[in-house]
Amino acid sequence: MHPIEAVRWAPEGDAVRIIDQTRLPESLVEVDLRTVDDVCDAIARLAVRGAPAIGVAGAMGLVAALAPHTGEPEAAFRARMSAYAARIASVRPTAANLSWAVNRVLDVGREMRGSNQALLSSLRERATALLDDDRAMCRRIGEHGEALVPDGARVLTHCNAGALATAGIGTALAPVYVAVERGRRVEVIVDETRPLLQGSRLTAWELARAGVPARVIVDGAAASFMRAGRVDLVLVGADRIAANGDAANKIGTYALAVLARHHGLPFYVAAPSSTVDAALASGDAITIEQRARDEVARPFGRVTAPDAVPVENPAFDVTPADLITAIVTDRGIHRPPFAFRDP
Amino acid sequence: MHPIEAVRWAPEGDAVRIIDQTRLPESLVEVDLRTVDDVCDAIARLAVRGAPAIGVAGAMGLVAALAPHTGEPEAAFRARMSAYAARIASVRPTAANLSWAVNRVLDVGREMRGSNQALLSSLRERATALLDDDRAMCRRIGEHGEALVPDGARVLTHCNAGALATAGIGTALAPVYVAVERGRRVEVIVDETRPLLQGSRLTAWELARAGVPARVIVDGAAASFMRAGRVDLVLVGADRIAANGDAANKIGTYALAVLARHHGLPFYVAAPSSTVDAALASGDAITIEQRARDEVARPFGRVTAPDAVPVENPAFDVTPADLITAIVTDRGIHRPPFAFRDP
Repeated sequence: MHPIEAVRWAPEGDAVRIIDQTRLPESLVEVDLRTVDDVCDAIARLAVRGAPAIGVAGAMGLVAALAPHTGEPEAAFRARMSAYAARIASVRPTAANLSWAVNRVLDVGREMRGSNQALLSSLRERATALLDDDRAMCRRIGEHGEALVPDGARVLTHCNAGALATAGIGTALAPVYVAVERGRRVEVIVDETRPLLQGSRLTAWELARAGVPARVIVDGAAASFMRAGRVDLVLVGADRIAANGDAANKIGTYALAVLARHHGLPFYVAAPSSTVDAALASGDAITIEQRARDEVARPFGRVTAPDAVPVENPAFDVTPADLITAIVTDRGIHRPPFAFRDP
Repeated sequence: MHPIEAVRWAPEGDAVRIIDQTRLPESLVEVDLRTVDDVCDAIARLAVRGAPAIGVAGAMGLVAALAPHTGEPEAAFRARMSAYAARIASVRPTAANLSWAVNRVLDVGREMRGSNQALLSSLRERATALLDDDRAMCRRIGEHGEALVPDGARVLTHCNAGALATAGIGTALAPVYVAVERGRRVEVIVDETRPLLQGSRLTAWELARAGVPARVIVDGAAASFMRAGRVDLVLVGADRIAANGDAANKIGTYALAVLARHHGLPFYVAAPSSTVDAALASGDAITIEQRARDEVARPFGRVTAPDAVPVENPAFDVTPADLITAIVTDRGIHRPPFAFRDP
């Protein structure tokens, strides 16, 4: 099952085709990124989002943007390659995946000599390998995690760690997609996920598109769904995981972990193994990004909080490992006590 | 301290002056309700909201609407009184306070004979008594509850059970206002309260207006504020309280009760004693109103959830009594085990 492809090569191979996520859930619009401006703009305005997806889109976008320029002198072409890479990587400086993926493509350029055309071929191969690796990573998370999603399961999720956040079948949603692929009936209860509503806008959309029954609730309703016996497990993604298993994810995730514990429900985190930062002893060292007031106080341009009152808008929270039943990565299912090490 | 007056007589006594809550937090606009259409319209479009406030506004509005008609024959005037009362009470049929308050005014009409002018005077006296009773009820909740709000307290609240929901200083916020009046420093952390955002739109506004430090967060951030040691107590209102202390309140309240327990924080409910329905043995018997999909899926006209995906929008949840540290009413502080009886 492949619900949608958030990032792929356009059929002619000369552009990166993405789903414009700013148009969801109202319209499915695909956009072809051909120039470095196209690529930077798409990443900046969150037309493509989710750490794995922007990494792959940035790497592929670098190649697409260079393609029309192979006719220029080799030194100029290589200078252009470096300049484009630097521009793309800097669009979202805190997105570690983006600079990592762009640098993997640049490595090829550093390693090889030869014609611009041959170099471009190698760059394209590397970018395609990153795309394929991302898809394979998602599939492995799904195959390791599907055993946690039994027939009839009602899965509560938060934010979007689905196909739209990757080039493949997603991270947190991958076990759901594989379980459905294997014939199991699964319902997903989707927290809308304030402030940016990635749950209602994106997760609900991609589940519907894939034919997986879903239901949207406000974040505050998750607790009463659990109390009413309408949730069997919680399954969320992670932005960063410490060596001890503490996991940072979208604001509101930690509340779900406490609520799951109170109601005796398993709480699972599913994420790429690259999300583990073994150099971090615990989640206490994770700095929480504070985002703009207007995401909360001016949704869709309408003022919803008085100017005189401060708004605090942390993007993430940290769920301590002792509330996590298991962490699923592309390497397997990890159970507590967690002790992640660098590969 | 009286932060604002959500419902009062206009200076000439010929109209009910309300704050138009649909204009908050952007503009403070007061509206005078003079006709039965004015009154019904204000209640219907939630210009006045909160069970105590709409009861008082409905009762006073009945009197204001009748005032220009004392010149007509007595039978016609009395028929008009009954017709207006029925119209006003039916605007929000599930609001028990509204029909209760309108009927308290009608009782006067049933009991007395005399000129239209004398009757109108008595109706006005009864409506004013309801206004005064509501203010006194709020004040008593505040005076009983203020002991729960120590100097330096950081109070987390949800929705709006403040002055805007009553004719007085509110219910859940009354202990805060009285504590501040007595010189204590209090900060209120305000859940925005999706879907209708009564926290950010109304609670934050009235606290700022009263000079009480406040801070708005998305509902999903409450848990991490508790974990960070930034909350000392939770204080919320209630729409209905069962004999055993189970309390129905705005969706999202139950999550706060579980989170407060997990973090070792007190969880207080403050409400008028009229909120207690001693005929209900427990909260299990409380029917939860399901509200319109568009409150969640189309906030401010923008589509945020795909049409293909169902939305479930329960307006309330029930917090079981065993998670409630104390219930404050105008009669005092009630501690578990709760065993409410009819007065």
